[in-house]
Amino acid sequence: MTDLTALNALYATMPPVAAMQIRARDFDGERLQLHAPLAANLNDKGCAFGGSLVSVMTLAGWGRVVLGLDAAGIKADVYVADSQVRYLAPLFEDLLANARLAPEEDWGAVLHRFRERGRSRVLVEAIITDVSGKTVATLNARYALLRSG
Amino acid sequence: MTDLTALNALYATMPPVAAMQIRARDFDGERLQLHAPLAANLNDKGCAFGGSLVSVMTLAGWGRVVLGLDAAGIKADVYVADSQVRYLAPLFEDLLANARLAPEEDWGAVLHRFRERGRSRVLVEAIITDVSGKTVATLNARYALLRSG
Repeated sequence: MTDLTALNALYATMPPVAAMQIRARDFDGERLQLHAPLAANLNDKGCAFGGSLVSVMTLAGWGRVVLGLDAAGIKADVYVADSQVRYLAPLFEDLLANARLAPEEDWGAVLHRFRERGRSRVLVEAIITDVSGKTVATLNARYALLRSG
Repeated sequence: MTDLTALNALYATMPPVAAMQIRARDFDGERLQLHAPLAANLNDKGCAFGGSLVSVMTLAGWGRVVLGLDAAGIKADVYVADSQVRYLAPLFEDLLANARLAPEEDWGAVLHRFRERGRSRVLVEAIITDVSGKTVATLNARYALLRSG
């Protein structure tokens, strides 16, 4: 799954993700960018629903890990294990999330643990920014990698 | 909004919430219970999507605060401010979330702050359990209350 088409095909199999119209837009090898239209993600106040903000960020982090594993030639099931979310400002625009491995994370060590034990953990951070570049929500999450099947 | 019909009408105005088919089921004055069918909330592995789990818990907490404010005769906009989420086990059943004020929270003080300053904060906790009663996900969240308009 080195291309976003395959990742988007995977996202599209998940009914809530399809309903929120979440799509991967760009991956530069480090940062994965996801987009979702505001119209499909409104709350009662006409801005983005908090559950949609966290869904987009959680899915961006998940996709980032999936793409990294694919690049390493590893097949694993990826589950979110825990997360901390901060909602900093209401968002009245489309949702644009960027996810990357946490700066303190050692990807080589993550892969090494997985190859040794068949399971591993990885820290990811994601943010949602508005068109001016202001951060409106952040997520710090741990994902569990488990041998498939 | 002392009845769940009105709360569900409010939920139904939010497109992502309608898509995830999240509905309030019961409120005993302390705990608000929400339900969402698994079929509308599947991930790629046939269990509940992490974003749906956190959406249901976030919305349960939000609804709990809204119902509490209504009982106190207070009109306020309620926003989730931050949250910590733990995903403990995959869920292969419908999503059933229960939310209540955090045990250490002083609701009287929350309302007093709001009446004095036009803004306040409240701590809420929510859990999702499976049919055997096992907890599969937890959320601890802070909600901001702001004077409407």
